[in-house]
Amino acid sequence: MSNPKVFRELCRAEVHTKPTSGVLPGYVQANLLILPKSAADSFQDLCARNPVACPLLTKTLGSPHILEEHAKFISGDSFDIRTDFPKYNIYQRGKLVEQKNNCRKEWSKNHIGFLIGCSFSFEDALKQAGLTPKNVLRGTNVSMFVTTKYLDSAGIFHQCPYVVSMRPYKPEDINRVREITRPFKKTHGEPIDWGFDGAERLGISDLQKPDYGDSLRIAEDEVPVFWACGVTPQLAIATVGHMIDGLVIGHTPGHMLVLDATNVC
Amino acid sequence: MSNPKVFRELCRAEVHTKPTSGVLPGYVQANLLILPKSAADSFQDLCARNPVACPLLTKTLGSPHILEEHAKFISGDSFDIRTDFPKYNIYQRGKLVEQKNNCRKEWSKNHIGFLIGCSFSFEDALKQAGLTPKNVLRGTNVSMFVTTKYLDSAGIFHQCPYVVSMRPYKPEDINRVREITRPFKKTHGEPIDWGFDGAERLGISDLQKPDYGDSLRIAEDEVPVFWACGVTPQLAIATVGHMIDGLVIGHTPGHMLVLDATNVC
Repeated sequence: MSNPKVFRELCRAEVHTKPTSGVLPGYVQANLLILPKSAADSFQDLCARNPVACPLLTKTLGSPHILEEHAKFISGDSFDIRTDFPKYNIYQRGKLVEQKNNCRKEWSKNHIGFLIGCSFSFEDALKQAGLTPKNVLRGTNVSMFVTTKYLDSAGIFHQCPYVVSMRPYKPEDINRVREITRPFKKTHGEPIDWGFDGAERLGISDLQKPDYGDSLRIAEDEVPVFWACGVTPQLAIATVGHMIDGLVIGHTPGHMLVLDATNVC
Repeated sequence: MSNPKVFRELCRAEVHTKPTSGVLPGYVQANLLILPKSAADSFQDLCARNPVACPLLTKTLGSPHILEEHAKFISGDSFDIRTDFPKYNIYQRGKLVEQKNNCRKEWSKNHIGFLIGCSFSFEDALKQAGLTPKNVLRGTNVSMFVTTKYLDSAGIFHQCPYVVSMRPYKPEDINRVREITRPFKKTHGEPIDWGFDGAERLGISDLQKPDYGDSLRIAEDEVPVFWACGVTPQLAIATVGHMIDGLVIGHTPGHMLVLDATNVC
């Protein structure tokens, strides 16, 4: 496909229903969370209070076609949050009940859609600096861990832990890795912690046993480096979903929205 | 004194050099941190990444007389960040070296001053709702604890713990307490956690032994409620201060700047 608009149209026509990894490199991809209005204020507060773990890019304004600061993310008006992701997860009371190629039927006037930053962009920047993450080199999924660090509570969101992604680096490379990822302020930015003492501070007891993604051996001359991870808001929904009346809709992990923006720092 | 402008002039003339608790109720008071430019970007990132613990209100723009969004905080141009606090702490390499009534001599063109929100405002709101914090009722200082929850790292700021303030409430009052303090978004907002399980999540082992402030007995029908605390950025400076070249200046705790604003939510 030639550009993000054409790609979104292929998703809308349900021609592309696969993951978006490697699709249109250089364009920003976004995570999705669609919530009933009753939970939307709490979620927006959660993002405002925890911007590193929950980097809110924008939200729908009444219609599924219009975003706050629309032009920053989508060129023109050919946009539909209910169809432009390749695949959707439908949740009821925090439980996954269905996967669908669109959520036209599930979306209601009572829903607000939130787009959330994702870390694909900074992996690319690390690669270009010659610091390709090991998971990218191996073609495996990044290791992700549920921590004992909790988000600052907001409204219905309470006792929701940070999820972190881990990439091993040599100690002498950490300063550069931090500098390279720092500008990606809307996609988790620089690492939140690092080192084996950092793992301890985050309450991670076994670095070989990730809660999500693939296991990755840390070499003897490497230490773990931890970034806040986009799974955090999803786990937050799983944690408090039983308190939410009405359907919650997310993208199917890996099946992101491709934006027209190349940079949302 | 009749209004904040007059009060600031009294501070400038070194007539008022005492704490500001109870001074001009209803007006917002602010914490201070003046940093050399080399540390300023890191600190601004720290605030952006940890807005609940480090609620940045504004900063100086080149001159000690001009703030970003000046008119939101100060009416007119009668303002000097070097003199308008009643008392200043001067730090070198993270250590307190002097207390002074002004910092005219220490301030240089290489310094940037940051104003940070403080929680006096929400205590007043709780009082007005009939939920006066126990420390206010008793006239003691609030209990503050250094936690095992760390700020998301930013630049030179690494391994800096959250400091929390604790106020005991009855479990049935917690929802109202949360709702009342939630709108104070620039002054720590709603509690970050609560309950005895919350104390455990924050790594607080003895609720009777605060790290700062006075001890307060939690009655049998009460649980602890924890807010992020303005001591957090001060402790961050103490933690990484050895890496900062040049003088760091803060207000002397309790000796705040009184703004013309009545609300900075």
